Amino acid sequence: MKKKNLAMIGCGTVGQGLLRIIAEKKPDLNVVAISDKLKGAIFDPNGIDVSKMLDVLENDGKIEEYKSASKKAITGLDPIETIKNCNADIMAEMTYTDIETGQPATSYIETALEQGMHVTTSNKGPAALYHAKLAKLAAKNNVQFLIEGTVMSGTPVFNLARETLTGCKITEVKGILNGTTNYILTKMENEGWSYNDALKKAQELGFAEADPTADVEGFDALAKVVILSNYLLEGNIKPDEVPRQGINEISLENIRSAAEEGLRYKLIGSTKLEGESISAYVKPVKLDLSDPLAGVGGATNALTFNTDLLGEVTIQGPGAGKIETGFSIFVDIMTILRQDS
Amino acid sequence: MKKKNLAMIGCGTVGQGLLRIIAEKKPDLNVVAISDKLKGAIFDPNGIDVSKMLDVLENDGKIEEYKSASKKAITGLDPIETIKNCNADIMAEMTYTDIETGQPATSYIETALEQGMHVTTSNKGPAALYHAKLAKLAAKNNVQFLIEGTVMSGTPVFNLARETLTGCKITEVKGILNGTTNYILTKMENEGWSYNDALKKAQELGFAEADPTADVEGFDALAKVVILSNYLLEGNIKPDEVPRQGINEISLENIRSAAEEGLRYKLIGSTKLEGESISAYVKPVKLDLSDPLAGVGGATNALTFNTDLLGEVTIQGPGAGKIETGFSIFVDIMTILRQDS
Repeated sequence: MKKKNLAMIGCGTVGQGLLRIIAEKKPDLNVVAISDKLKGAIFDPNGIDVSKMLDVLENDGKIEEYKSASKKAITGLDPIETIKNCNADIMAEMTYTDIETGQPATSYIETALEQGMHVTTSNKGPAALYHAKLAKLAAKNNVQFLIEGTVMSGTPVFNLARETLTGCKITEVKGILNGTTNYILTKMENEGWSYNDALKKAQELGFAEADPTADVEGFDALAKVVILSNYLLEGNIKPDEVPRQGINEISLENIRSAAEEGLRYKLIGSTKLEGESISAYVKPVKLDLSDPLAGVGGATNALTFNTDLLGEVTIQGPGAGKIETGFSIFVDIMTILRQDS
Repeated sequence: MKKKNLAMIGCGTVGQGLLRIIAEKKPDLNVVAISDKLKGAIFDPNGIDVSKMLDVLENDGKIEEYKSASKKAITGLDPIETIKNCNADIMAEMTYTDIETGQPATSYIETALEQGMHVTTSNKGPAALYHAKLAKLAAKNNVQFLIEGTVMSGTPVFNLARETLTGCKITEVKGILNGTTNYILTKMENEGWSYNDALKKAQELGFAEADPTADVEGFDALAKVVILSNYLLEGNIKPDEVPRQGINEISLENIRSAAEEGLRYKLIGSTKLEGESISAYVKPVKLDLSDPLAGVGGATNALTFNTDLLGEVTIQGPGAGKIETGFSIFVDIMTILRQDS
């Protein structure tokens, strides 16, 4: 069997996490191209030495500083040129998420699918906004479009549904889909911190951005709920159709009074089949302590699947991280290699 | 592609759960043989009408009361004769568990593997006692031996590890592996019931057997810990090498004093890689309430995987049940069909 070739578009945190995993696990795979808007690009049909590339990148170097042993190596191609010229079997899309437009990631994915490449992405934009279009394009080109990393990093969600719940009908999915807000709520309840103090700590720890709007107002969880709706419940909903409420109006007083009732606030993203249609939301919910999601503390994520044959199954694990999200891309590549051999 | 043929050995609760799922989901599969020590047997190379068979069995009928439309149907073959004559592609072994000897299930599995059949079982005996021998026999015959239902019924455990954590090294697995004891501990803590009252209620509800030894003294959890050790940590340990302590000596007083410390008793089965060797146990453990296993109440099961790339991932779901365990066999069959096409 011919070794498969991988092209990586985007080589920030997730891309470097993926390279670290490839260097350690040594899968049967050639990395032939890496293109990143900030760090530069290389295409080497003979394959890139992943450990050497990591030495460069982890010392804040540019991709072009990597010394290829091959005379065929070409530097400086932008992502679209890279995809069109690299003749890879698989493209891993790991650029930044723009949840308003899904670009430029969506154009990279479309170009790769049109070239007959399998695609894996951890980017919520394309999956939340262009699910139907991209699924159709993948089917037309007889390749896979996998998105494990878009929800709960490498913790199994889509792979869990597809590979281990085969034959189960999933009727509802709900969970804690944003680590920052769960960290804030946990600290408010356990340590008695104010919302502002907890947010500040989350920012210091690097969980929350300087502008925390996407997390605390529920936009991040919303994108994930849309993806879960369309991929797991076969819906076709858009982000602006889902009611959204964040945690920015939850006070310490609200949390304390819930605790007195034996309840606990969690920011829940939920989507449910109701007849032929889908009912979804993102909002703070007071959970009974016996709910499997109530015990999920800190930055951890969790998701409960309601199914016809197994009832409720809940998966809990990391929701972010360099290696954790790198693994989501890695496991999608392993799925593609297993099925395309 | 030729439709695959399935032989079912054992047709009690699990077997009837499987038939119910096959009747509903209509997979691309012929059930050609069913043999059960109590209910009788049929082999029909033209395939058995699963819905008609369910009508008979669910009215407490014998397998021979099913009227086959086919002149080729033969009744009365015992399990070994059935396996040798039925020419199936897959054998589902669903007879009773004998955790001392693993028999007669192990002889059924060996016979099927030797005939070149893929095998799936929900039976803890063969998997706990003869892992190495059966794995070798399966490899020699180039077929699969799958055991999803031996731990946590159809809740993904082995499939989760194999299909969705591909490339992760699992270093530790620990969990709540017995629903009866977790139900008892939950009722003692939440309702203030004595151990004896909670056990009696579990027996009334059908969770616990008239002789509850296997559950309350930890033998059931022990078999599962051995299976997890050998299949997920690549060990080769035997049941009598694992220290075992049940919940039968846990008093209401113990539970209350743990609660005062902010802790909760759970019967934990654990196995861990320590260098080249495996350290495993079954015992009641006082968990911190922030532990993902602490919030698992009632008859629900849960398992935490510690992995090199994702850290801790926890799966929670049903640990028993007719449809739930039937699904474990069904999903293994789906895995075999997907890979053997």
